[in-house]
Amino acid sequence: MNYPARLQGLQKDFSGLGFDVLLISHLPNVRYLCGFTGSSGVLVVSPEACFFFTDGRYKQQSRDEVKGAKVVIGQRSALASAAEWFAKRRKTSNSKGWKLGIEGEHFIVADRRRLISMLPKYVHVREAPPLTERARMIKDAEEISLMHEAARMGAGLLDHAFASIRGGATEIEAAARMEFAARKAGADSMSFETIIASGVRSALPHGRASESPISAGGFVVCDFGVILHGYCSDRTRTVYVGSATREARRTYGAVLEAQLAAIDAVQPGASVGSVDQAARKVLQKNGLAKYFTHSTGHGVGLEIHEAPRVAKGQPELLYPGMVITVEPGAYLPGKWGVRIEDMVVVTEHGCEVLEPTQKEFIVI
Amino acid sequence: MNYPARLQGLQKDFSGLGFDVLLISHLPNVRYLCGFTGSSGVLVVSPEACFFFTDGRYKQQSRDEVKGAKVVIGQRSALASAAEWFAKRRKTSNSKGWKLGIEGEHFIVADRRRLISMLPKYVHVREAPPLTERARMIKDAEEISLMHEAARMGAGLLDHAFASIRGGATEIEAAARMEFAARKAGADSMSFETIIASGVRSALPHGRASESPISAGGFVVCDFGVILHGYCSDRTRTVYVGSATREARRTYGAVLEAQLAAIDAVQPGASVGSVDQAARKVLQKNGLAKYFTHSTGHGVGLEIHEAPRVAKGQPELLYPGMVITVEPGAYLPGKWGVRIEDMVVVTEHGCEVLEPTQKEFIVI
Repeated sequence: MNYPARLQGLQKDFSGLGFDVLLISHLPNVRYLCGFTGSSGVLVVSPEACFFFTDGRYKQQSRDEVKGAKVVIGQRSALASAAEWFAKRRKTSNSKGWKLGIEGEHFIVADRRRLISMLPKYVHVREAPPLTERARMIKDAEEISLMHEAARMGAGLLDHAFASIRGGATEIEAAARMEFAARKAGADSMSFETIIASGVRSALPHGRASESPISAGGFVVCDFGVILHGYCSDRTRTVYVGSATREARRTYGAVLEAQLAAIDAVQPGASVGSVDQAARKVLQKNGLAKYFTHSTGHGVGLEIHEAPRVAKGQPELLYPGMVITVEPGAYLPGKWGVRIEDMVVVTEHGCEVLEPTQKEFIVI
Repeated sequence: MNYPARLQGLQKDFSGLGFDVLLISHLPNVRYLCGFTGSSGVLVVSPEACFFFTDGRYKQQSRDEVKGAKVVIGQRSALASAAEWFAKRRKTSNSKGWKLGIEGEHFIVADRRRLISMLPKYVHVREAPPLTERARMIKDAEEISLMHEAARMGAGLLDHAFASIRGGATEIEAAARMEFAARKAGADSMSFETIIASGVRSALPHGRASESPISAGGFVVCDFGVILHGYCSDRTRTVYVGSATREARRTYGAVLEAQLAAIDAVQPGASVGSVDQAARKVLQKNGLAKYFTHSTGHGVGLEIHEAPRVAKGQPELLYPGMVITVEPGAYLPGKWGVRIEDMVVVTEHGCEVLEPTQKEFIVI
């Protein structure tokens, strides 16, 4: 990864916004900007220089990983070391003092208080806009390649899900088998708690795998993903156990049509709201709109949920390199639920599904 | 669990501290106080009443789970619903306005800003002390019983670790087998990322399981735990693979002696610092003090790391019902590491190890 270029991009992005220096503490942002994968470290980015602060535990690791920023190993916490560094700097000629930007969506109130108490009076702490999150929305070629790899590993877990369902496993056993296979294949971890929701539980959009045996009749929603080399995958397939009614097939068909329509709507310059609308319109036509109770998707990358939110009315425009999920569903309370999800990357002329697999109606 | 009593305890604890109302948003605290296990909800606690705010997704679940607080299902986020509730209340006769306490160690800066913007001017938002965290330090009989159950399930995973090590698995495979067994046994999840660190990697106190095969000679540190019914277990055992040198046995013996001495020091009225000191003193005598690079332990319960920190010089006193880990170690960089850990509960007259298992030197 070209970390120095990312840091330079951030330096450029925040110039003109009135900040003298940024403090980056959200670990996925730290990793994105300088490569550090440990659990304690902050970046200080000024227009002229970048410093990475951590503690003795990460001496070797930070020297191996961090690129584009000078590594400072402190005696205290990363935050305290960063504050000490500020305290030692002479105030520049700027008579208004320094404006230090923190990441308001991640920084806790108590840390803000402690930081202010450690800083010279002329440093003013303010919330900065989510510049790194915005930069992270557009993936470069290397990231897209890693996301293909993660998606491929995730896709491979489906056979384990299906075999468990055929074998009459409990929901948790099915999830456990997928997780075991992921670990053996070398996943860092799962990207979220595996959802295996069968029978009436399939109508719960976020039904965690339970100890119930998988229902002998009805839909089973399988929503799962891995983290590989730091990047998340996310995929949902819904299969039918037993003899499917015409209504079940019709519901599945409508959700699939909605998903394909939403994927068709993904192209450079389209708004994420129009992608959501494309899915909603198909479900509306099929009388299922009121059963689609969540948004159509979300950005995905170093975190499982990233910007943008692919939701009703959202104006964010799609650009080549963005990776989003497309995952409409229909949930009939007390009856069943269906969701179909892929990750897609926006390309120059449309989009590409990351590692497509079968989406036709499957009876197990 | 007696949730109403916990909420009443909090109402009593914050009276006299100058707050008119508390906003509890940290989910383990919410769960502890009212029983809600979902992922979105806040509690508002005034001296007279308790309200729980969540959104439509949790309508049924909150009605099933929440005890001791009136459930309010809002149209917007839980935080926005709570703010709306404030805005609708008439200002009382208190001419200084209302002082609203938030959980500073958990509340993010941007949420604080949004909350303030939604509140009437006479509501003043301030950081409250960690009252719920302090209450949670002392476990009641029902919690201790659940922690025994979690510890027992965790202990059962050791055989899977040892079998994997004997079978020449990679570190990740050994971890995956333990995690699979935990899931099959009904664990909610692991309480942290399983550590299997062999050979020179055993010298890394937080060495995540890697894709390396387990070294044919040397120590293997296995640190792992489950979450069962919400409560965490935490246990470390270190075994030796191959023919152990006298020095390896001596190092192991010193760490075990330190762990037993620290457990002996756990009794009501003792400071957590004295428990840390008891371990450190034994390692000092054995010339290993400088290789013990972390603290002796931590509180454990609904979260894997809770108050108190069992660390050098910490004055917190032990009370019956506290559950802490006792986990001294010695890490010789580039050579090996040993750590031995149990959870202990403070009793009326001393302490009890939760589900003790063998700690003698084991060669595999």
